[in-house]
Amino acid sequence: MNTARFIREKRDGKSHKTEELKNFLNSYLHNEFKDYQMSAWLMAAFLQGLDAEETKCLTQTMLDSGQKMDFSDLKKPKVDKHSTGGVGDKLSLIIAPLAAVCGATVPMISGRGLGHTGGTLDKMESVPGFNVKLTTAEFNKILRAHDLAMAGQTAEIAPLDKKIYALRDVTATVEYIPFIAASIMSKKLSEDLDALVLDVKFGSGAFMESEEQAIALAKALVEIGERFKVNTVALITDMNQPLGNTIGNWLEMKEAVEILNGKGPKDSRELSVALTANMLVAAGIHQDYDVALEKVNEALTSGKAKQKWLEVAKAQGADISYLEDLTKMPESSFKKEVYASNEGYLSAFKCRELGFLANDLGAGRYTKEDEIEPLAGIQLHVKIGDYVKKNSLIATLYCNKEAKLTNKDLALNELISFSNEVVTEPRLIRYKVDKNGIQEL
Amino acid sequence: MNTARFIREKRDGKSHKTEELKNFLNSYLHNEFKDYQMSAWLMAAFLQGLDAEETKCLTQTMLDSGQKMDFSDLKKPKVDKHSTGGVGDKLSLIIAPLAAVCGATVPMISGRGLGHTGGTLDKMESVPGFNVKLTTAEFNKILRAHDLAMAGQTAEIAPLDKKIYALRDVTATVEYIPFIAASIMSKKLSEDLDALVLDVKFGSGAFMESEEQAIALAKALVEIGERFKVNTVALITDMNQPLGNTIGNWLEMKEAVEILNGKGPKDSRELSVALTANMLVAAGIHQDYDVALEKVNEALTSGKAKQKWLEVAKAQGADISYLEDLTKMPESSFKKEVYASNEGYLSAFKCRELGFLANDLGAGRYTKEDEIEPLAGIQLHVKIGDYVKKNSLIATLYCNKEAKLTNKDLALNELISFSNEVVTEPRLIRYKVDKNGIQEL
Repeated sequence: MNTARFIREKRDGKSHKTEELKNFLNSYLHNEFKDYQMSAWLMAAFLQGLDAEETKCLTQTMLDSGQKMDFSDLKKPKVDKHSTGGVGDKLSLIIAPLAAVCGATVPMISGRGLGHTGGTLDKMESVPGFNVKLTTAEFNKILRAHDLAMAGQTAEIAPLDKKIYALRDVTATVEYIPFIAASIMSKKLSEDLDALVLDVKFGSGAFMESEEQAIALAKALVEIGERFKVNTVALITDMNQPLGNTIGNWLEMKEAVEILNGKGPKDSRELSVALTANMLVAAGIHQDYDVALEKVNEALTSGKAKQKWLEVAKAQGADISYLEDLTKMPESSFKKEVYASNEGYLSAFKCRELGFLANDLGAGRYTKEDEIEPLAGIQLHVKIGDYVKKNSLIATLYCNKEAKLTNKDLALNELISFSNEVVTEPRLIRYKVDKNGIQEL
Repeated sequence: MNTARFIREKRDGKSHKTEELKNFLNSYLHNEFKDYQMSAWLMAAFLQGLDAEETKCLTQTMLDSGQKMDFSDLKKPKVDKHSTGGVGDKLSLIIAPLAAVCGATVPMISGRGLGHTGGTLDKMESVPGFNVKLTTAEFNKILRAHDLAMAGQTAEIAPLDKKIYALRDVTATVEYIPFIAASIMSKKLSEDLDALVLDVKFGSGAFMESEEQAIALAKALVEIGERFKVNTVALITDMNQPLGNTIGNWLEMKEAVEILNGKGPKDSRELSVALTANMLVAAGIHQDYDVALEKVNEALTSGKAKQKWLEVAKAQGADISYLEDLTKMPESSFKKEVYASNEGYLSAFKCRELGFLANDLGAGRYTKEDEIEPLAGIQLHVKIGDYVKKNSLIATLYCNKEAKLTNKDLALNELISFSNEVVTEPRLIRYKVDKNGIQEL
């Protein structure tokens, strides 16, 4: 293969032949040409575009580069949820047991927090003993016993995606939808799913800032899902304020369990229920969305979903007494109450910066090597639309090193805007995108 | 400097600040970031464009990265010619002594042949003893004594261009006019010139295939020249057939000397004279082009230019008896006469392939390591527009290994097209581009 000639083809706006693109990508995986050639191709593809066939080929070649799960022996439909990431997004902890108790098998592979977003694995590890580093055998055994297992990667999934992502990150070729979609889907498709529900977020705390970008990404994800015969549905949701009231690993685990107890903040609950009901319909467990919704709500109120969560947590080694009695876990060593320095209707959060502020307290990572403090984080007492009086309590910060709290009250106040006009609570769930197109909700 | 952020700026179609672009380029020269980041930037710049200010900055930073000549002590105007390269282009060998004898100082830095085009240095070396590897001191001494010196680089000129070019070559980022123009001009500007005349070729044997591309390149080159206060003039010339009758190093040297003897093929002579006359006007030696033309023709017919060439060749170590008596050099060990397998008006050459055919005979290089056979090459007996009878002699091939001649008569016939209609001889010199714009000739 003449690598420069291949790059030139994309540079000149042509579409690659599927077989040639596959060869090119595999040659890169096997180090048969140089990073500087791949980065030139990535920039050419970013600017000249990849068509649907090329995006499928990229996804397929990434998928085929790694190990794939095989659940062909399982009777129940296999379904997972993926979020594009946001601040305070602890919904996997709620959705996974909910779906499992409603008739689905949920082989959930989760990730770590990085940048302004948290990671499900870190949240699970805030519970003493919770083992997220399962072997393939352990994962399979727990999944078969409980219809649910949640862990980090058990085998090398999509190493080509990993290699390409590392290069994109340093060559300004991250923010291109076909690349993003192929990267997400190559990993999710390795889970041998029947259906996949995506939570595609937009706003100040999301990867995609605008609704339009989020919709475009959702469409690309659904199209890939269709091409791989995985029934894929995406909800477009608002990430202009943190989801729920908490940011930080144990704080979020606690909020998730509160929701499984039938309580907790309305927005986290509403979106968890909607995503799970969509999973049940997409997986063919229910034909009718309203019936699915009813079953999901029943699983919550009956305590069955909570029971499932305790059962799986226990199977994965967690000391579930911390989940049974949420007061058992001590608070972090230091906390600081934050009072409003202004007054008015809360109109906006700088949501991404709020994620970074939680990081600064110890809740997240800037680099893969950073250590996490499970108890650190932010409890918010206000949401967009609330009328906030000056000097009223708006947040509580938790931290294990007192020095980290210095000036954080001022910093937090700067991330909140007020308006004199009434601000209406933003709709959380905006659109549904599936094989039939887009539908406003 | 955040390299990824800088690349993103160009990816998103923005113009860089001059100081930041300069820092970026110098950081690359000093290996402060990776080749894969530079290649992403190169592709982004290729597709999103560099403006005139950025192109000047690129040229300046390349120029400043290396050593520059200083001829401020010389009284006569310093002027050089540069060709974008073609097949059979031996004009430097004619123009350099012509200009030098007509009142200019010509500090000519030349190159080696690579790909389908030959190199002036290789042609000079076909004469026994001709030393083209002069030290800076030798170059300066010869130039001051004879108003002309011709050699390869004596010091490291524009190493940044070299480093970037190596990367462009393997990342499909060669064919972008601002890159090409900056690369050419950064090297020529190091010669401390007052004026520069460019022979920008288009056609099947040129780097730029279309007239439009050649004009665009010429305009870019002239614009850079203007910005660096070097009076720059470009002629746009036809390279759809070899220039003159010969391809191959000694064959071309012989043709050059024949022209200096007042003979030789019309096209090589016509273009040599025109380029030299433009050099004299651009350098301010003559105000009037027709006067310059007269002086140049006089230098040819009087034998003064030939005398200058012998003088300089001798100063550079050449055994000039080979130039005084062109029959002294033996022919190559093997030759083959090629006869027309068709009949009609010669309408086209596959000129680039003709260059490669000469390479195959030993006249050129595919890689920098290939050895050259000075006597190998092609003597053509026909030009576009000639009526060629079947089985008439159209070319003679010269080679030092008989096996290389196998089937080359068939190959050569395939590079020539015939027409039943009369074909008019193509005009060689099409346009002149200078600071006043473009003028049809």
